[in-house]
Amino acid sequence: MIIVLKPQTSQEEVDHIMKKIERLGLKPYYSKGEQASIIGVIGDDSKLLDHPIEAIAGVERVMPVLKPYKMASREFKAGRTIISVGTESIGDTKFTVIAGPCTVENEESMIRIAKGLKERGATFLRGGAFKPRTSPYAFQGLGKRGLEILAEARRVTGLGICTEVMDVRDVELVEQYADIIQIGARNTQNFNLLKEVGAAKKPVLLKRGFATTIEELLMSAEYILSNGNQDVILCERGIRTFETATRNTLDINAIPVLKELTHLPVFTDPSHATGKRSYVAATSYASLAAGADGVILEAHYDPESAVTDGVQTVSLETFSEIMATLGRIAPAVGRTV
Amino acid sequence: MIIVLKPQTSQEEVDHIMKKIERLGLKPYYSKGEQASIIGVIGDDSKLLDHPIEAIAGVERVMPVLKPYKMASREFKAGRTIISVGTESIGDTKFTVIAGPCTVENEESMIRIAKGLKERGATFLRGGAFKPRTSPYAFQGLGKRGLEILAEARRVTGLGICTEVMDVRDVELVEQYADIIQIGARNTQNFNLLKEVGAAKKPVLLKRGFATTIEELLMSAEYILSNGNQDVILCERGIRTFETATRNTLDINAIPVLKELTHLPVFTDPSHATGKRSYVAATSYASLAAGADGVILEAHYDPESAVTDGVQTVSLETFSEIMATLGRIAPAVGRTV
Amino acid sequence: MIIVLKPQTSQEEVDHIMKKIERLGLKPYYSKGEQASIIGVIGDDSKLLDHPIEAIAGVERVMPVLKPYKMASREFKAGRTIISVGTESIGDTKFTVIAGPCTVENEESMIRIAKGLKERGATFLRGGAFKPRTSPYAFQGLGKRGLEILAEARRVTGLGICTEVMDVRDVELVEQYADIIQIGARNTQNFNLLKEVGAAKKPVLLKRGFATTIEELLMSAEYILSNGNQDVILCERGIRTFETATRNTLDINAIPVLKELTHLPVFTDPSHATGKRSYVAATSYASLAAGADGVILEAHYDPESAVTDGVQTVSLETFSEIMATLGRIAPAVGRTV
Amino acid sequence: MIIVLKPQTSQEEVDHIMKKIERLGLKPYYSKGEQASIIGVIGDDSKLLDHPIEAIAGVERVMPVLKPYKMASREFKAGRTIISVGTESIGDTKFTVIAGPCTVENEESMIRIAKGLKERGATFLRGGAFKPRTSPYAFQGLGKRGLEILAEARRVTGLGICTEVMDVRDVELVEQYADIIQIGARNTQNFNLLKEVGAAKKPVLLKRGFATTIEELLMSAEYILSNGNQDVILCERGIRTFETATRNTLDINAIPVLKELTHLPVFTDPSHATGKRSYVAATSYASLAAGADGVILEAHYDPESAVTDGVQTVSLETFSEIMATLGRIAPAVGRTV
Repeated sequence: MIIVLKPQTSQEEVDHIMKKIERLGLKPYYSKGEQASIIGVIGDDSKLLDHPIEAIAGVERVMPVLKPYKMASREFKAGRTIISVGTESIGDTKFTVIAGPCTVENEESMIRIAKGLKERGATFLRGGAFKPRTSPYAFQGLGKRGLEILAEARRVTGLGICTEVMDVRDVELVEQYADIIQIGARNTQNFNLLKEVGAAKKPVLLKRGFATTIEELLMSAEYILSNGNQDVILCERGIRTFETATRNTLDINAIPVLKELTHLPVFTDPSHATGKRSYVAATSYASLAAGADGVILEAHYDPESAVTDGVQTVSLETFSEIMATLGRIAPAVGRTV
Repeated sequence: MIIVLKPQTSQEEVDHIMKKIERLGLKPYYSKGEQASIIGVIGDDSKLLDHPIEAIAGVERVMPVLKPYKMASREFKAGRTIISVGTESIGDTKFTVIAGPCTVENEESMIRIAKGLKERGATFLRGGAFKPRTSPYAFQGLGKRGLEILAEARRVTGLGICTEVMDVRDVELVEQYADIIQIGARNTQNFNLLKEVGAAKKPVLLKRGFATTIEELLMSAEYILSNGNQDVILCERGIRTFETATRNTLDINAIPVLKELTHLPVFTDPSHATGKRSYVAATSYASLAAGADGVILEAHYDPESAVTDGVQTVSLETFSEIMATLGRIAPAVGRTV
Repeated sequence: MIIVLKPQTSQEEVDHIMKKIERLGLKPYYSKGEQASIIGVIGDDSKLLDHPIEAIAGVERVMPVLKPYKMASREFKAGRTIISVGTESIGDTKFTVIAGPCTVENEESMIRIAKGLKERGATFLRGGAFKPRTSPYAFQGLGKRGLEILAEARRVTGLGICTEVMDVRDVELVEQYADIIQIGARNTQNFNLLKEVGAAKKPVLLKRGFATTIEELLMSAEYILSNGNQDVILCERGIRTFETATRNTLDINAIPVLKELTHLPVFTDPSHATGKRSYVAATSYASLAAGADGVILEAHYDPESAVTDGVQTVSLETFSEIMATLGRIAPAVGRTV
Repeated sequence: MIIVLKPQTSQEEVDHIMKKIERLGLKPYYSKGEQASIIGVIGDDSKLLDHPIEAIAGVERVMPVLKPYKMASREFKAGRTIISVGTESIGDTKFTVIAGPCTVENEESMIRIAKGLKERGATFLRGGAFKPRTSPYAFQGLGKRGLEILAEARRVTGLGICTEVMDVRDVELVEQYADIIQIGARNTQNFNLLKEVGAAKKPVLLKRGFATTIEELLMSAEYILSNGNQDVILCERGIRTFETATRNTLDINAIPVLKELTHLPVFTDPSHATGKRSYVAATSYASLAAGADGVILEAHYDPESAVTDGVQTVSLETFSEIMATLGRIAPAVGRTV
């Protein structure tokens, strides 16, 4: 940690800061420059987490040198995390495709979709039983009945299930049914929910919030990892920007950045990141080419009749085309689909 | 609702859309233009909430005409909502000042701060017992003990208490102690938590998330209102932008916008919106001048020793100055402090 | 254009708006709804460009239905614009790779870079003679001498030249030397400069500003097209967002969006969009996979010694790898490199 | 400047970096930590402007300690810059109000507006003769004739003139007519234009671009200052964010930030920052309360008939109210209006 001092800081102020740091068991080094003076702090920065150095008189700025996350970092684990779910391996050479409707609507449609996706090569089935809706007047999901329908779709097709949990009180229930527990973008920093899924025995697909920085996403992953669950998949799903032509902006840069910083698998969600069906294919291809380990897509045999998010849901025909093109791109970047 | 059709939409597609809308009990009007054709829909748009018209072939864009919130709107309630808390009235001519440390640290410091603020004219006392922290390794708050300390500070000073709840399981507990229940910026769209505080008997201070639009903030208020709690205070606390000179950007525009759209009281949080102590006074004055009904500030007798957020916490001396200047500005805009 | 009226608009106000629109030769249709009333306007919206309907009493909102650009739109030209430069065709099946140093430094290094890139398969050579620098104290480019060096590099290698013009007074000069004239991100809305290059006889690579919307980018292209120059290449180069892990955020969504809206070729600039060398390869692959027609990259035989932007400049070795991988991805999306 | 090294940097790499820095006449200090090593650089950082240290192998990150601007900084000039224009002083205790139509329309309307504003207490008259328009098909301003009309309005009312220059070729012309030369938001980083107005003999009102950081705004001011013109007024006019309820987001934080960093006067532009007439008053009051030295407002006797920007233009009646309220707030913050 580097502490930049204000130009007119007095010797008393400097001494005061130095002592404060020493009292925490860290070593401060003072360096007086012609134009600016700094104090370098050596040792475990995290001791300063609950001691706001920036609040002390004479301090202009504090610049952290170390990364605030540990278990999520490449320094903690050099290789790649590969997560086994049934017969599938996430984060390995095979590019994972999770697909399904936004919402579980009823058993018949769910099974029809699941079969259609299985035939076309999907790796996992998605579907929401608990739905975070902006409006209190909108459909909020089938709840437990939705989970049962998903289980039935798994029984019929063999596809593992990825479904969202929104409430700490539902973690146990969702854990019973899901193969992958999803944390949605509005809960990326719902720290108590992260702790609960950190104690669960199923892998977690953690979506990035639409205004969460990459570092904060890794800190949220750290909540899960440090509570005991090592199977975390990070999912970039679009961030909020000034651009209104799309629902969100897919931060494609986040893929190589995360690959550099962490050992965890990285997915994208082209459906939410664009908000429009006709942009899903292009951004799925981009995700694979940029190094992502998988995508999560909204697909339905009849997007027009989907209860929610139809506008960004691809048809089974489009899904077939997407799978075919992903299959052609994959070997160019050392992957299979 | 206006449905803009794609240029080459066929008559069959138009008929299909028209029928779909009629089946929902709404009246569609088709208007064929030289360069673009539209379908206007008259009636209660909310019937379309779970039917994604945009997903239908031939539809280019759907433009809602009506506002999606009802109980939060000026159309629902023409006057201003005034919330009585003990002897105080929020949303009336008096400008409300909620102040206190970021975190409840211990009884002694809390009571010292509370007394200092009471003497200097604060209206309510704030302090966090449950703290949402980016890092799992940082101090997470005193929990129930923190609430007890706040209650003791209230007993000693008479100041009402504003404190945050983060977890649906803690709503009942927090409700027992708090005079105003705070929903933090990371929970603005934690819809289950909103439903729970919607059922509580205490006013709710609802912070805007750092990437929540004004319309979404009003939809989140709608969750609370529609669950039975009419006492909602909206709080702008800074949004995320590209600017890095400050922690967030205080959206001062949001004050007149919200005053135009809703009857609910509007506060700001200059401490979090700037992230730096020396900018808190200026933005507090701006908030009052722009029409806000109150501010929530972080204050401590010794910001340097504050466990969290010291860098944006003002001292009691600065708090005195802020109160004095607010007192001088208030009459210019028809207020008292 | 749809004009949404305020709830309490009087009949006089409605009549006033109707007359105003009729006087401009347009046909207004009034539609009184239960909850909201609207006026639809049929005819050429652009007549309203200089008549702010939104400013009239009773008007709540104006929602344009037609796109504001014409010559840049797919409606104006159904096919794709293919631009011939020497023996190369931009916007056709071959993926174009423009590469070179940020700045022209001296003849020796320029020719060494140009030869290295030519050997490795670059399509065009880039290099700045006029440099927009944030600091007035930083190197501002070699000016005319830089252009002469670029011409010499072209003579030696046969590579066409892409170079930036910043000043209306330099357009004639740059036009003499460049094969492609570049408009930088800070000049996307320098309308007088756009008019000047609109009168030039060379193709223009128009970069998107870092806070320019996709629609505004197309309007800027419209300035060039409507001044007579039909050879415009659009270039997404990263937008400003809250994320600080990268210099900018590459808006990968912009590729399919632009492909849907316009016939013009679409490039990306992975160097500026990421700001870091190690992210350039991944985002170049993503651009090709998402449907871009080309990329513009910063490359140097010794990035460390580059005068400007070394941190985002790839070495010739990395450039070779990028070309090889692009070559493998291309056929998967119907391209060659 | 602090150079943070990558974890596995070799001694050769460290030596290489050290030598590189020494060759530039700067003193590097190497500090090996347990978890991270750094090199501190003492001396004039600006020597490194054209030498990208971040591009060298082994360097993870470069953190500047010194501010990149000099003449704009408080360190360069401790007091406040007060700019005399005729009998008016900008940046002193009097709060400056520049007002007028977006565009100069014709002599009659201009003089009518000027008289109305003069009577109501405006300090300067604004009006555009050269207009930056997003669409090439929109009215582009009256040019020289517009300047003549402004001069006539000044002759009649005595109000000084503030008008925009967009093109380096027009600086001499605009300088002849204007009392304050305005640089618009799209030209904040048009460096050649900044150099030209830096050589002019009239004060410059420099608007912040809608995605320009505060530091970049100060660097743009530095271009003007370092070219000889010391009379620069900075103007915050709204930045681009995800919020769509307003045209832009007024960055009210920028006022105290700029007041801390620079001696130059700071204005805001509530009309462009909100884009809606009914929000102009509230944000003007906020600007004064937050410490701004003035505002620039769009005002017209008949906003509905204004050629451009009518929706954000206030009427003369509203202007009167704004002036009255500003007059009441001013003494509370040590100002007059």
